[in-house]
Amino acid sequence: MATTTTTMASLLSARFLIAPSFATPAAGAATYHCDSKLAAVSFPSLKCRHLPSAAAIGSPAPSTPASSSSRLLTRKSVAFAEARSIEEEQMLTECPASLLREGENVQWDNPSTSSMRARFETMIRKAQDDICAAVEAVDGSKFHEDSWIRPGGGGGISRVLQDGNVWEKAGVNVSVVYGTMPPEAYRAATGGSSDNKTALDKAGRIPFFAAGVSSVMHPKNPFAPTVHFNYRYFETDAPRDVAGAPKAWWFGGGTDLTPSYIFEEDATHFHQVQKQACDKHDLAFYPKFKQWCDDYFLIKHRGERRGLGGIFFDDLNDRDPEVLLAFSSECANSVIPAYIPLIEKRKDTHFSPEHKDWQQLRRGRYVEFNLVYDRGTTFGLKTGGRIESILMSLPLTARWEYDHQPEEGTEEWKLLEACRNPKSWVPAS
Amino acid sequence: MATTTTTMASLLSARFLIAPSFATPAAGAATYHCDSKLAAVSFPSLKCRHLPSAAAIGSPAPSTPASSSSRLLTRKSVAFAEARSIEEEQMLTECPASLLREGENVQWDNPSTSSMRARFETMIRKAQDDICAAVEAVDGSKFHEDSWIRPGGGGGISRVLQDGNVWEKAGVNVSVVYGTMPPEAYRAATGGSSDNKTALDKAGRIPFFAAGVSSVMHPKNPFAPTVHFNYRYFETDAPRDVAGAPKAWWFGGGTDLTPSYIFEEDATHFHQVQKQACDKHDLAFYPKFKQWCDDYFLIKHRGERRGLGGIFFDDLNDRDPEVLLAFSSECANSVIPAYIPLIEKRKDTHFSPEHKDWQQLRRGRYVEFNLVYDRGTTFGLKTGGRIESILMSLPLTARWEYDHQPEEGTEEWKLLEACRNPKSWVPAS
Repeated sequence: MATTTTTMASLLSARFLIAPSFATPAAGAATYHCDSKLAAVSFPSLKCRHLPSAAAIGSPAPSTPASSSSRLLTRKSVAFAEARSIEEEQMLTECPASLLREGENVQWDNPSTSSMRARFETMIRKAQDDICAAVEAVDGSKFHEDSWIRPGGGGGISRVLQDGNVWEKAGVNVSVVYGTMPPEAYRAATGGSSDNKTALDKAGRIPFFAAGVSSVMHPKNPFAPTVHFNYRYFETDAPRDVAGAPKAWWFGGGTDLTPSYIFEEDATHFHQVQKQACDKHDLAFYPKFKQWCDDYFLIKHRGERRGLGGIFFDDLNDRDPEVLLAFSSECANSVIPAYIPLIEKRKDTHFSPEHKDWQQLRRGRYVEFNLVYDRGTTFGLKTGGRIESILMSLPLTARWEYDHQPEEGTEEWKLLEACRNPKSWVPAS
Repeated sequence: MATTTTTMASLLSARFLIAPSFATPAAGAATYHCDSKLAAVSFPSLKCRHLPSAAAIGSPAPSTPASSSSRLLTRKSVAFAEARSIEEEQMLTECPASLLREGENVQWDNPSTSSMRARFETMIRKAQDDICAAVEAVDGSKFHEDSWIRPGGGGGISRVLQDGNVWEKAGVNVSVVYGTMPPEAYRAATGGSSDNKTALDKAGRIPFFAAGVSSVMHPKNPFAPTVHFNYRYFETDAPRDVAGAPKAWWFGGGTDLTPSYIFEEDATHFHQVQKQACDKHDLAFYPKFKQWCDDYFLIKHRGERRGLGGIFFDDLNDRDPEVLLAFSSECANSVIPAYIPLIEKRKDTHFSPEHKDWQQLRRGRYVEFNLVYDRGTTFGLKTGGRIESILMSLPLTARWEYDHQPEEGTEEWKLLEACRNPKSWVPAS
């Protein structure tokens, strides 16, 4: 899930994507059908960033809940992007307060009584705001923001800071997607149980909800590391005409570090923060999710990981959803303390053109992983996700040299060795 | 088939790769099993380029056919590359005269009596030599050469010119691969006829032979275009214990142009040369193969082609193989007259940093096509092809900007329009 976007594609969890019917573009495309209920989607204006002030004229005041009046106002403000047949998104001129449908249980004054959907959206929107603010404070330049909706339900807020003072390219995206999936995908997602196979097949397509925050940030200085994180929540509704058909829900996510040069203390700090977040909830989490991360971010054709890992988890639904929301929030809140200190420490380190070249070669590896293996990216590209949001994960620049082999013992070789043979960065609890 | 390598993977034709059993890495990997008959592979030294002179000591004189003595000598010269578990290749210190197995019908003194395998190898080796010589003459620097074998049969010769005077990166590869494929792949390859299904299934894996030349050349100047070409020949043997089981063979290939800026006369010249090559053999070829090229090199998620096309064909076996060998040779021989004049004309054109940035963005698109869609590349990466040969097709450098949209009417916009809406560059015959 290493895209900077959280379109429906990147929100689909691993267990969806291993289903053979999802492996080909044609089959994949067939799984994405949003309901045509634009009228049911509300977009009150709550937080607007870097948008024409004219767009906000007449829009509701901040913190106004979804309402008929705001819906009417914001529907007028929907500006269609240039016609591109492969993209279904409609660009907004103002940032919606919520990407949820009207009628979802959103109690702005009392979040604890809101639905999990609403509370997860609140969490990822806050994470997006907090992390963008932290990045802007260090970089000294501002994120550009694009908001968009899908006519069938849901939408996204993409923020990108490009060619800044510290970061070459940093993208932080939020998206909320409603859609339906065919029964075979549902079975694949829920472990393929055939208990209710006939009922499911009769029921037809199964509604789902997916929401997530996703980010990749590539700094300029070759000694400052790239970070990626993504936290997501998924629900499938009961098929409408099948009483008692199972519902499913799960959490997924992770945060991982991709430096071009190893500083042991940096990698240790980063993993330590991940471990602390995990340990607060379950001592088994960090070792399990650290391993999962090393396994997932493998560039198979190179036999090396993209970077030094971190944590990665999916299909998490083995305890109270409240606990897992708290865990996901903990992880999202750990991005700033895990990452920003490393940037502060390394952003002004002197470097040579050779250091920069090596960073660019590692950026090439990042592109290879994301375009060849990353499930969110590959699936998103093949199923009509918003391309610019999906490909925000790619670096501004990258390089490929024929048969480049760092000399044994060099700093470049050490990084490669660590990518080939992942090590433990923090002692076990 | 837009890789610069012609490993077994890139040689597999389109109809192989659309078979569902080939769509997943696991299934794909299972299809590549070479026979373990290293002793049957001969590598006499014929043409050596840029190799340590010591390696040639005691090797047979040029034009020596495969023989026991040369085999013994060259087997001694096999130098194992660093141990990489995902690569099976063994690097050679000298360039083999032939990548064919000993016993193939190679009559060096009288090529017309040689087998099609041998004659095709001769053709692609000559194409590699001629094109590299033409490129070196323009660039003023030399290709680096790596030769390698696969223990199971076959091998390759990769040549790369990196960071030259004119080209940023130019790769020209030849490879010859022997292997076996499972019956279901054979059926997919031959249209799925079930006439002899039982006999085939009993026969087990079916031997195949594949050979090809493949190249991508990226110049430095943003007004000088990138070219790709690939010509390949494929055979499947009759299963050994099934009398009368069908054999299959076919030719495939193409040459296409990817400029960052359009010069109408350049595109017309390039297509005119392709058309002339086609027209000598069949007036129906050019329109059909031009369309096929436009269809194949589509970056689906962008709704745009990689470039301005050329010709692309596959599964060609509807006439005498002698005729198709002549056609393939004609096409390969057309690369120099189609491409080199464009480079001569544009290599020293003055350009601005903005022109270079646009070229780099288009290089990013090239990477997207090759890593996401190109069958040779994606299949090669997932089935253990020689990575450095496969990824020679990637540019030295590339760039991704968020939501870059050229202003309407600009030269950049015109290129994009031509990639979105392919046009006819030459009048119909």
